[in-house]
Amino acid sequence: MKLWDKGVKIDKKIERFTVGKDRELDLQLAAFDVLGSLAHTEMLQSIGLLEKKELKLIQEELRKIYSAIKNDAFVIEDGIEDVHSQVEFLLTKELGDVGKKIHSGRSRNDQVLLDLKLFTRNKLEEIVRESRLLFDELIAKSNQYKNVLIPGYTHLQVAMPSSFGLWFGAYAESLTDDLLVLQSAYKVVNQNPLGSGAGYGSSFPLDRQMTTELLGFRDLSYNVVYAQMGRGKMEFTVLSALANMAMTIAKLAMDACLYNSQNFNFLSFPDELTTGSSIMPHKKNPDVFELIRAHANALQMLPAQIQAVTSNLPSGYHRDYQLTKEFFMPAFDRMIACLEMTRIMLSEVKINKDVLKEERYKYLFTVEEVNRMVLEGVPFRDAYKKVGQIVEAGEFKYNGKLKHVHEGSLGNLCNDKIVEKMNETFIEFNFNRTKEAYMNLLNRI
Amino acid sequence: MKLWDKGVKIDKKIERFTVGKDRELDLQLAAFDVLGSLAHTEMLQSIGLLEKKELKLIQEELRKIYSAIKNDAFVIEDGIEDVHSQVEFLLTKELGDVGKKIHSGRSRNDQVLLDLKLFTRNKLEEIVRESRLLFDELIAKSNQYKNVLIPGYTHLQVAMPSSFGLWFGAYAESLTDDLLVLQSAYKVVNQNPLGSGAGYGSSFPLDRQMTTELLGFRDLSYNVVYAQMGRGKMEFTVLSALANMAMTIAKLAMDACLYNSQNFNFLSFPDELTTGSSIMPHKKNPDVFELIRAHANALQMLPAQIQAVTSNLPSGYHRDYQLTKEFFMPAFDRMIACLEMTRIMLSEVKINKDVLKEERYKYLFTVEEVNRMVLEGVPFRDAYKKVGQIVEAGEFKYNGKLKHVHEGSLGNLCNDKIVEKMNETFIEFNFNRTKEAYMNLLNRI
Amino acid sequence: MKLWDKGVKIDKKIERFTVGKDRELDLQLAAFDVLGSLAHTEMLQSIGLLEKKELKLIQEELRKIYSAIKNDAFVIEDGIEDVHSQVEFLLTKELGDVGKKIHSGRSRNDQVLLDLKLFTRNKLEEIVRESRLLFDELIAKSNQYKNVLIPGYTHLQVAMPSSFGLWFGAYAESLTDDLLVLQSAYKVVNQNPLGSGAGYGSSFPLDRQMTTELLGFRDLSYNVVYAQMGRGKMEFTVLSALANMAMTIAKLAMDACLYNSQNFNFLSFPDELTTGSSIMPHKKNPDVFELIRAHANALQMLPAQIQAVTSNLPSGYHRDYQLTKEFFMPAFDRMIACLEMTRIMLSEVKINKDVLKEERYKYLFTVEEVNRMVLEGVPFRDAYKKVGQIVEAGEFKYNGKLKHVHEGSLGNLCNDKIVEKMNETFIEFNFNRTKEAYMNLLNRI
Amino acid sequence: MKLWDKGVKIDKKIERFTVGKDRELDLQLAAFDVLGSLAHTEMLQSIGLLEKKELKLIQEELRKIYSAIKNDAFVIEDGIEDVHSQVEFLLTKELGDVGKKIHSGRSRNDQVLLDLKLFTRNKLEEIVRESRLLFDELIAKSNQYKNVLIPGYTHLQVAMPSSFGLWFGAYAESLTDDLLVLQSAYKVVNQNPLGSGAGYGSSFPLDRQMTTELLGFRDLSYNVVYAQMGRGKMEFTVLSALANMAMTIAKLAMDACLYNSQNFNFLSFPDELTTGSSIMPHKKNPDVFELIRAHANALQMLPAQIQAVTSNLPSGYHRDYQLTKEFFMPAFDRMIACLEMTRIMLSEVKINKDVLKEERYKYLFTVEEVNRMVLEGVPFRDAYKKVGQIVEAGEFKYNGKLKHVHEGSLGNLCNDKIVEKMNETFIEFNFNRTKEAYMNLLNRI
Repeated sequence: MKLWDKGVKIDKKIERFTVGKDRELDLQLAAFDVLGSLAHTEMLQSIGLLEKKELKLIQEELRKIYSAIKNDAFVIEDGIEDVHSQVEFLLTKELGDVGKKIHSGRSRNDQVLLDLKLFTRNKLEEIVRESRLLFDELIAKSNQYKNVLIPGYTHLQVAMPSSFGLWFGAYAESLTDDLLVLQSAYKVVNQNPLGSGAGYGSSFPLDRQMTTELLGFRDLSYNVVYAQMGRGKMEFTVLSALANMAMTIAKLAMDACLYNSQNFNFLSFPDELTTGSSIMPHKKNPDVFELIRAHANALQMLPAQIQAVTSNLPSGYHRDYQLTKEFFMPAFDRMIACLEMTRIMLSEVKINKDVLKEERYKYLFTVEEVNRMVLEGVPFRDAYKKVGQIVEAGEFKYNGKLKHVHEGSLGNLCNDKIVEKMNETFIEFNFNRTKEAYMNLLNRI
Repeated sequence: MKLWDKGVKIDKKIERFTVGKDRELDLQLAAFDVLGSLAHTEMLQSIGLLEKKELKLIQEELRKIYSAIKNDAFVIEDGIEDVHSQVEFLLTKELGDVGKKIHSGRSRNDQVLLDLKLFTRNKLEEIVRESRLLFDELIAKSNQYKNVLIPGYTHLQVAMPSSFGLWFGAYAESLTDDLLVLQSAYKVVNQNPLGSGAGYGSSFPLDRQMTTELLGFRDLSYNVVYAQMGRGKMEFTVLSALANMAMTIAKLAMDACLYNSQNFNFLSFPDELTTGSSIMPHKKNPDVFELIRAHANALQMLPAQIQAVTSNLPSGYHRDYQLTKEFFMPAFDRMIACLEMTRIMLSEVKINKDVLKEERYKYLFTVEEVNRMVLEGVPFRDAYKKVGQIVEAGEFKYNGKLKHVHEGSLGNLCNDKIVEKMNETFIEFNFNRTKEAYMNLLNRI
Repeated sequence: MKLWDKGVKIDKKIERFTVGKDRELDLQLAAFDVLGSLAHTEMLQSIGLLEKKELKLIQEELRKIYSAIKNDAFVIEDGIEDVHSQVEFLLTKELGDVGKKIHSGRSRNDQVLLDLKLFTRNKLEEIVRESRLLFDELIAKSNQYKNVLIPGYTHLQVAMPSSFGLWFGAYAESLTDDLLVLQSAYKVVNQNPLGSGAGYGSSFPLDRQMTTELLGFRDLSYNVVYAQMGRGKMEFTVLSALANMAMTIAKLAMDACLYNSQNFNFLSFPDELTTGSSIMPHKKNPDVFELIRAHANALQMLPAQIQAVTSNLPSGYHRDYQLTKEFFMPAFDRMIACLEMTRIMLSEVKINKDVLKEERYKYLFTVEEVNRMVLEGVPFRDAYKKVGQIVEAGEFKYNGKLKHVHEGSLGNLCNDKIVEKMNETFIEFNFNRTKEAYMNLLNRI
Repeated sequence: MKLWDKGVKIDKKIERFTVGKDRELDLQLAAFDVLGSLAHTEMLQSIGLLEKKELKLIQEELRKIYSAIKNDAFVIEDGIEDVHSQVEFLLTKELGDVGKKIHSGRSRNDQVLLDLKLFTRNKLEEIVRESRLLFDELIAKSNQYKNVLIPGYTHLQVAMPSSFGLWFGAYAESLTDDLLVLQSAYKVVNQNPLGSGAGYGSSFPLDRQMTTELLGFRDLSYNVVYAQMGRGKMEFTVLSALANMAMTIAKLAMDACLYNSQNFNFLSFPDELTTGSSIMPHKKNPDVFELIRAHANALQMLPAQIQAVTSNLPSGYHRDYQLTKEFFMPAFDRMIACLEMTRIMLSEVKINKDVLKEERYKYLFTVEEVNRMVLEGVPFRDAYKKVGQIVEAGEFKYNGKLKHVHEGSLGNLCNDKIVEKMNETFIEFNFNRTKEAYMNLLNRI
């Protein structure tokens, strides 16, 4: 069954090609499709396009479908091309003519836009919560190992003293910025497209303010042409925001793989979290972090994938947008897996507390010596030259202590300030609003 | 002169290769480098690393250099590799030993990070202001032509009635979302990296809170390792945000080129704004919009360029980051040109008020007819089928009026609501704070 | 079972994450894995690492597995992580100790490299054959409609006369270049990596020349470190070559969608090959070409995806490469579907023979008039100006005939020359060599 | 002066925007523009559109311009928008009406296509020659250090013995594949677009075969619509081919930076080829290789940049293509610099011959031990387990010798075979053909 069936037999091959992965991906949209229909029909009744009795029948049926979905008892049947058709098909089967009325004032275009936005809102919440867990782990580890020194590198050359406190804390603070960017994407998503129809609105006197409230949106996408234009653009905005977070994770993973190498030996992981080789019996490979790195790097290219598909399409819907779902929808679980795996790995990491004992790190403290001279009154450039000469002569030694006291330095990590940043951003997401809206929709009599 | 000169003659070819476009690009950073040094030296004095007298001398000299920059009288001299070296060189030439003290507690790494952030903050302000001008133009045009109908397309097929009011308004609302995303990037940028040194802080008791206030930052990048990690990442965040705006502009440009074609003939431009052909005397080409489209599309790929260069670099500075400046710094003026050119073109656009008279658009009103039947009580799917049969029979006609009244539809554009969205976001940038901070720095006694 | 099992229980979540889509993707490699093992074991016997009897047993078993694969009776069992393990597991189950010997002188690294190369060689052959079919269709259509004129556009402005002959023929010639590029990728692929082990070769006296011949490779990847480096790089090379072809297809699809719009009306498709709208009963949308366009555009970004994952990985295997399979392996069927769908659509295309009758195309012939004057002796720039003035005055008319006679022009398409180009490239692939090698391997006694 | 000047004053801002970087970039095309005009005019005379006398005058003038270009005495004057206009302007200034005739049968579209192809052919030759020099250096170093062992890594974990012979040789063989791919791009480029005009050919009886021979092309781009379609596509093909080579260089650079780290200490560079730090007096940073890596990574993203600009443009010229020159033209010198810098660095590299003495590499030889057991008759999987147990017990030692003898292994590098591959590909470029064609054009009486 196709909503637009004109009685013409469509070649099977063509059908398989045009349906693509839709039936599979759409299953993830099913619950949101029903939530959207609950709001839409309530609004239709309010403007007289459904009678109260009809609304009651429809909503009961929709709630049954919702339960089925939640119990994994919902399928898109053979020959039905997408989730929207399946829901409408179920309604019509149960309710006859009444079921047919549900599509008034709505097009599949704004319906899928809506489903995608609700789905995205949901997945972004999962990501925010998962990244918060990782953040907490990073802060905990930073505090725990704040006194364990490691070499800091520039140009992959031994440079100045750093610490595990700094290293873990850096990635924590990185996540605070990532969440800030994610929040703007969340706000862009959190605007109601329902009522934009096929991109040109409707001659029905729809009450879009009402569906906005029912679905817990923070605002409307007013202009119907823009609402439709959001297809592709929303995906780009959201994936760009995820890309920032992926960049944080990828770098952490690269560091972890490097530091786990015998040539660094800063950290290691228990056997259960490493893998072996089919020919080298001594290997304990950090495959988990390598795959985290790979996934996180791949995620960063997704905005370009969206651009590749949508670039230079004139305004108005094109079927090309269907394909964006293949890149967009799996990105969330990929991101979540990266966050969770990173957290699991870090929770089990073993820290080498004796890194700095190795001879190769002896020049780490040259700047400390330069600064010591400066504090004794030697101009910076002169102190720099003097220490340079001592190094050249192979006579450099440093016996002083480390006294880094300024904000964010290894002696003063300011992790409390970083936690504050995180809290401020986290609270502004206001996830409860959505939750309440959904509860109301599902429990309304 | 190189700050790290060890007296070894560096091969000329190597030097040309390593300096790259730095001397050219750095000129745009010069004013910001001086502002940063004003703040840094004031802080150095406050912690006893400079005497009051020394500070006065240095700051007078720095303000002279600032004036020179503003009067285009500043150059990076031959043999001096970047802007930081040139400023320090000028200071030392004038002040001798005192000039050498300015680099205490600072590395070129945090210095260039700071310069880039100040530069970016500035350029983002320009972009926000320019996009606001375009927004105002779009809203004005939307209001002016709100009653001029055009066909709305889906799949590039004639679909339903749209209007110039909707078309212009759509791009206006798109800019409100773009600014929301840009704002989060602005907030990420607007955090102070100064004091992070080479990425591992300093043993001097720097007062980073003080420089944060002096430079008008909203907060610190606390963790020094993260502050350094911002290199590359900030560029990615900012360019990703620009990419959203570029996507809006590119689509507008594509529409404009298409609608200007003889096959659409919705709009045209005066001769001064079109170009001709070297062999076809009748041509009036929309080159400006084609180039806007090209630049806007190219801008969208820049985050991927940043990723390409920075991907899988372990934490800590690498010289690779220098190259990101080539992609990052010119992006702003490119974006500004796109916004300005679009505004100029739209301010002169000629609208065809008679588009819908053409026969080819006769099926535009089928949904109106379907909805009319629904309002008379016919279930939606049945009305849909009936009208389909009339179309097949070649007998479709629609004489009714258009009565689109819901929010965001062609009869109710809600441009006031869209302006409200814009205003709310715009005001939150709070550009005055920066301005005041700079005024204080430059006028302090 | 894992080949590297050290008896440690691996956390389930970690396992799911690390296995990823491997078990699913690896099924496509199964047949090639067996072919590789046939060649490898034959070689092992030749250097004394297997006895003749052992070889016979192993090869019989391998051929049984090959049959099972061809009959869809092969599965990767639960708890077995990839295809290589499954095959070795089956052998060991049947043959005991003898089965264990097969992995001598081989690592999973060179095994998967080999499997991927054999798989790729095979898929590239499919693509070449499918693109040849499309090429033939394009040439046929070009010849069939060589006299049907359409407007040629520059800047989307009506420019000069073109024809369906030119339009179809252009895409045919484009495919000849695409195949040239694909062939170089094929040659890169067609080199034997077997024997490179984990990337550092083997202390067994392997006869790599022998496996090269047995598997029908044109040459060896000699250097074992380079052979391993081919992972990621081969994928990049092949996908870059596919990207060229995808670019051809995407442009054709864009043209088709545009020309099918009511605003162009150059061509259309029968109802069975178009789709409808859920709310607009008159719609016949070119979804097939929109999806072709989307897939073809997405394909072009895959090299960047590979770069994103592999960039800045030092030499030597990293688990990150596993993820490249997700982007690499499905690309072939995607490309094949694009080629096939395009061919099906074009085979049914309906051509509008009266396009040029419309008033809007009247300036198409200005250059013809300019050239006519030039042939009468007027200097080009003067003729150009004169015709320009006539156009401005609204008096332009052209009654002459079209006499384009030069190579590749609308009067002289040179399709025979283009077919010649195609034939030359096609024949050089020499697919028979592979076929013969496989037949020998499978039928050897 | 613009070739299409219609006497209308174009707004200055618009002009600056539309001209962009053309005047700067076009200077690199000047010599090729003249060569193209020499061939075009000779052909025009042969078909009667120029008299012999006129041809003589024009060609003398063109050769003068060519000399001026070669002596850096050619400029694009203010107010002249591109190189084509400048050349035609000079001709007309000297020759009057005769100069005006040169543009007959040609459009700026095929002119710039031709210029770009000649430019590209030339730059590709430079790249091939430069990569050959690097190849020779790599082979020389591979032979020189064939007996110096280093650890081979998988997963950045110490794995099996490798050698500098393998490491250098791997990159040499990588270049042989890169050149194979580059050659197919060269063949695509090496086809004549001249005569395609604005993309729809000409009504003049042009002899395109003649210009093909005069300019030393291997064939024609026959179909005129396809010839024009090559704009953007050729750039994509060529940049994709360069990307392969860039990938080779980027990985080599990453290895070099890593191996130069104190944590590896495999190799180092003399002081003249490293740089220092502004605050750390002991630093000797491998900036050259970091910048090579950055440039080589950036190069790999250029095909995506081309796609971003050209994607979904319907057939026919669009001004968007102008922007592709900004990405395309500088890529060649960037690639050449990477190749040259890499060669210079490697020519001075200092090799650490004692790498393997460090304790951390003791498990390198586990596979050797496993294989030794296998050769004594132990089944592979059993030997693997036994050695694994010895390693676990901390008792592993290996005193045997390395006997890797198979093709491409560390004991048998097969560098001669790799050189053979390189020679075969190199010779097929047949650069002499172009050289001879140009000599003939420039020296003809």
